[in-house]
Amino acid sequence: MNQDTSPQALREAIRRGDFTGNTSGYSAGFVQCNLTILPADWASDFLRFCQANPKPCPLVGMSTSPGDTALPPLGSIDIRTDVPSYRVFRDGEFTEEVNDITALWRDDLVVFALGCSFSFEEALLADGLDVRNVSEGVNVPMYRTNIECTPAGPFKGNMVVSMRPFKAADAIRAVQICTRFPSVHGAPIHLGDPGLIGIEDINQPDYGDPVTLADDELPVFWACGVTPQVALEAAKPPFAITHSPGHMLVTDLRNSQLAVL
Amino acid sequence: MNQDTSPQALREAIRRGDFTGNTSGYSAGFVQCNLTILPADWASDFLRFCQANPKPCPLVGMSTSPGDTALPPLGSIDIRTDVPSYRVFRDGEFTEEVNDITALWRDDLVVFALGCSFSFEEALLADGLDVRNVSEGVNVPMYRTNIECTPAGPFKGNMVVSMRPFKAADAIRAVQICTRFPSVHGAPIHLGDPGLIGIEDINQPDYGDPVTLADDELPVFWACGVTPQVALEAAKPPFAITHSPGHMLVTDLRNSQLAVL
Repeated sequence: MNQDTSPQALREAIRRGDFTGNTSGYSAGFVQCNLTILPADWASDFLRFCQANPKPCPLVGMSTSPGDTALPPLGSIDIRTDVPSYRVFRDGEFTEEVNDITALWRDDLVVFALGCSFSFEEALLADGLDVRNVSEGVNVPMYRTNIECTPAGPFKGNMVVSMRPFKAADAIRAVQICTRFPSVHGAPIHLGDPGLIGIEDINQPDYGDPVTLADDELPVFWACGVTPQVALEAAKPPFAITHSPGHMLVTDLRNSQLAVL
Repeated sequence: MNQDTSPQALREAIRRGDFTGNTSGYSAGFVQCNLTILPADWASDFLRFCQANPKPCPLVGMSTSPGDTALPPLGSIDIRTDVPSYRVFRDGEFTEEVNDITALWRDDLVVFALGCSFSFEEALLADGLDVRNVSEGVNVPMYRTNIECTPAGPFKGNMVVSMRPFKAADAIRAVQICTRFPSVHGAPIHLGDPGLIGIEDINQPDYGDPVTLADDELPVFWACGVTPQVALEAAKPPFAITHSPGHMLVTDLRNSQLAVL
């Protein structure tokens, strides 16, 4: 298993229980997705939340009817077994982490696959930019902001952002590159002064790890896929399943296929 | 004469001597150009300078052979009479301002029409952005930077930039909008700390007027069409003609036709 492993082979290893780790860096060039699974009577509000907040919650695919375990446009997937690690939430509280949700599956569950920053980071790296969390080998720093998402039913909350530092010219280039990928968070939503979006201390991320920010660099902020998780915690559905952080659904879709231009 | 005047009618009025003013705001939607006219034995170095520095010197059109007074792709133009005000330079020194260069015309002159920020400002305004120099009714502030242009023969010098302040989200939008218009300076070349590109005091522009920069705004910098004028002053050709600042060549080309996407 490495960057050259096909998504199909990687999912088969995951399905067999032979791979349970972080998927970052595996099956390079292919789209990895955030996962949210909800009962049908919560799904339409969550779908509206995604549609109203496409930058933090870019919907790449969803199951066609409740109980479906397949996601045909994203590959030959059994969603019960093909993600290396899942988190189960009951009444909005995280209760357990598992490598297989076959035993938990229900006929009313609806699957949402949301775009992930790995796709645009690959495009930034391919352009020669230094993606700090990658070059420093840590998780990207993420922050709660004061930017309110548009609520939908019980789903609501402030946007969570990820941050990558760049010199100004590279920040401008990053805007250009990421604009091509609206379904994986798209262009940054802020750059410069963190205080303007409610971040008090850039060195104290709410999730992930701090990274070096040089004097001649700007912090550049992207809407982050942790946002739907915050909305999920606010909504407190009786039952929900997500991927474990960094343990993504690896699809057959190529990152380049998400480019709008 | 107003924003609805066609470029043809405006040029006819200029040709007759009935219009000698600033062209800003006239013939809305149509490309206005910076003008540089040089003797043929200086033209190829200047052309190389433009090609090596496309952001400050975006070539929109040039005459097909020395002595030609027409620029067919840009409209039915007689370059000797169709610009409201010209500046004449001898040995790199500004010597006179005239409304007609028929008497100065020579068989060896080559005409260069370079893109101008009016085109992208129109696109920014159309998107609802506040272009500060427009809303404050002043000339855009311009600054000499420490960014060296790639020299070509005697043409050389540091890039001049124009500055427009925006909140971060609008700055990101401005990058997206201007990226579509590479032939009118394209995306900004810098944003944030002016000191990083050698600007000591943002309130003391080297050309144009200062504009208000709020605490929650970033200064955003574009490569500027004054740069070729600086290169001209450095090269000191024995004879050269440019437009007078703000008195542009108004063409039949629509701004939208310059969009690459």
